[in-house]
Amino acid sequence: MRASIVTIGDEILIGQIVDTNSVSIARHLNAAGIVVHEKISIGDDREQIVDTLRRALAASQAVIVTGGLGPTKDDITKKTLAEMFGSRLVEDSAVAAHVRRMLESRGIAFNELNRSQALVPEGCTVLFNAHGTAPGMWFEQEGRVVVSLPGVPFEMEHLMQDEVMPRLKARFALKGIVHRTLITSGLAESMLAERIEAWETALPPYLKLAYLPNPGAVRLRLSAYEVEGESVAQEIERQFEKLRAIIPEYIVGFETATVQELVHNTLIERGLSLATAESCTGGVIASRFTAMPGASAYFRCGVVSYSNEAKADVLGVDPATIAQYGAVSEQVARQMAEGVRRIAGADCAVATTGIAGPTGGSDEKPVGTVWIAVATPAGTIAERKVCGTDRGQIIDRAASYAISMLRETLLQNS
Amino acid sequence: MRASIVTIGDEILIGQIVDTNSVSIARHLNAAGIVVHEKISIGDDREQIVDTLRRALAASQAVIVTGGLGPTKDDITKKTLAEMFGSRLVEDSAVAAHVRRMLESRGIAFNELNRSQALVPEGCTVLFNAHGTAPGMWFEQEGRVVVSLPGVPFEMEHLMQDEVMPRLKARFALKGIVHRTLITSGLAESMLAERIEAWETALPPYLKLAYLPNPGAVRLRLSAYEVEGESVAQEIERQFEKLRAIIPEYIVGFETATVQELVHNTLIERGLSLATAESCTGGVIASRFTAMPGASAYFRCGVVSYSNEAKADVLGVDPATIAQYGAVSEQVARQMAEGVRRIAGADCAVATTGIAGPTGGSDEKPVGTVWIAVATPAGTIAERKVCGTDRGQIIDRAASYAISMLRETLLQNS
Repeated sequence: MRASIVTIGDEILIGQIVDTNSVSIARHLNAAGIVVHEKISIGDDREQIVDTLRRALAASQAVIVTGGLGPTKDDITKKTLAEMFGSRLVEDSAVAAHVRRMLESRGIAFNELNRSQALVPEGCTVLFNAHGTAPGMWFEQEGRVVVSLPGVPFEMEHLMQDEVMPRLKARFALKGIVHRTLITSGLAESMLAERIEAWETALPPYLKLAYLPNPGAVRLRLSAYEVEGESVAQEIERQFEKLRAIIPEYIVGFETATVQELVHNTLIERGLSLATAESCTGGVIASRFTAMPGASAYFRCGVVSYSNEAKADVLGVDPATIAQYGAVSEQVARQMAEGVRRIAGADCAVATTGIAGPTGGSDEKPVGTVWIAVATPAGTIAERKVCGTDRGQIIDRAASYAISMLRETLLQNS
Repeated sequence: MRASIVTIGDEILIGQIVDTNSVSIARHLNAAGIVVHEKISIGDDREQIVDTLRRALAASQAVIVTGGLGPTKDDITKKTLAEMFGSRLVEDSAVAAHVRRMLESRGIAFNELNRSQALVPEGCTVLFNAHGTAPGMWFEQEGRVVVSLPGVPFEMEHLMQDEVMPRLKARFALKGIVHRTLITSGLAESMLAERIEAWETALPPYLKLAYLPNPGAVRLRLSAYEVEGESVAQEIERQFEKLRAIIPEYIVGFETATVQELVHNTLIERGLSLATAESCTGGVIASRFTAMPGASAYFRCGVVSYSNEAKADVLGVDPATIAQYGAVSEQVARQMAEGVRRIAGADCAVATTGIAGPTGGSDEKPVGTVWIAVATPAGTIAERKVCGTDRGQIIDRAASYAISMLRETLLQNS
């Protein structure tokens, strides 16, 4: 079964927001075995909404729509859907009572605009939105389904999980989709492809291979669409086992999974604690770990020591070292890692110091230069990485390299 | 002039990556006055690529395509474009020399796969990619343009900026697009809309109003498409001035701009320094500030004091206070803010302590409860916020609330 995703909102087309809703919806659909045919983002425009939905309905059995359900005049999705399906808008008393309760608890007046949130196209199935004022709506026509969800990510997410997915599973006979990703490290994409060419050529035709290069890693994804039973998942396992015989030294793990998730799991399994000392990465390493539920089991303390004074006063970096080698140096990275490990009483620590730019670079240390150190009971190691030329990219890559380095160190000391 | 954006890659449709390329491309196009008609994401599938490009070319004068240009077999965009435009692939010697140099410097063998990166469809204009091995390609047909760019965000970004935008500006007669956003705080979306209804109704028809609700703020965006000269920008200013007479107490600023950018500018203007102490937000506040070029002018130090020991040992929070009131309490938030302000020698500090979940909540302090404190020379204030029920949402909202609170404090003390 195929589905299309349509996200509505001028803010997407002008680049004012990043569309994460469609990512989350795609994951839900894939997990249930529904193939996402395409994702389309369009503006708050009546004609474009109608055209796009008609076309999407011709290509897919289900279309999931988000956005355009707010109480203000710029949001027109509900009105347009009602017109498309030839329905008039009627008040849903359950939604009206919920909206009133919700607003009262937040001290907001129940006015004409909020009241309009309780209007729904007659004949659609109302999907109750416990977390917001705009209900979800489920339309059926000639065996095909259109679902309209609010654009607030959190409200969309709950409706998708609690209302839409159970209904899709009940309404359609779904097959399975299997994605499994293996992480390699140490071979460039083209060299890896050359090494595994014979394996790739011999893959069964229903398995689709994708190369996903990242800083420090190339991931290989095997996918099978619309399959039944467990045999395909087992075949993927067998194929990955064959690969292990070909490039044993380059396979670092499997994922759903980010490198920080692998480290997260390793730290919890081994009962080790972690501290971070970040200069150029500015808290990104700490935030990647603490974004994961359960991080409090091992994450002790992170220090974003942006100034030289903070490096010295908080982490105990020797000011003479900074004066002699500069803040971006192997010596300072090492002292930062060891310093935060000590003050946090942690087993492991990782530190970054670098030049994120756009200013601050020199011939010897251009923008993008980052020193990374990892301190563990086995000692401290440090490495210099060149992380690009763009501030956002440098921060992101340096954080990724640092977490990969921590991961390798943990593997070596296991 | 209209453009469509097409991003190609199975990884987008299965939700394995967030498509940020299309956001960046949309910003570039808007800034140059090009209306983005739609964004479409499709898989690495020959037929779908051809169908989508044909349709996009019918709707827009230019189509910007990213993805599918890697050296491995799963990437088929270049081959498909060559077929579509009836060209054969020929080696570009400049690209070949560049790829060889680039790989040699990274110690990667120049093999058959890399060599194929230098093949381009005959007749297209090659856009030199200084940062990667896949060149950009510019095709023209019947007065319409298709541009193919690599999917690596950093390579795409440079090609878009240095090659694509100058050519689009030279090739098409572009008008202007004006977006201007005003930030309000303190009125819920529906109450705000009610208060400014007469103003909204009286807007000139060529100005499009959008409401953009966020935690702690509702932004109002006025947009005008395909306009010429300065008069529209001036009209938007006049309209915002009228609004200032209607809701003076709720307007907090203007943006392109996030609240952290406003704080960033204020701190730099006033020569004030900042420190952060984060528990539940785990480094997100520090990373939002340090993501901005120039943050080193004011950002002294951030501490992610996840454990109680870190709160006590690093920030000097009194363990007795933690024992009496709990780590998530007004008292601990205040001591965290004051502690980090002291150890960093900063003028201002902001602190968060809360329950990000999914576990750790209680009846009295459910998941989502966050205490935020702001310490300045004028004293310390603290506020309790309920930030939702989902870990990611709680972290994001708590960070936003904290930065908004810092902003309000700075305004009151100005």
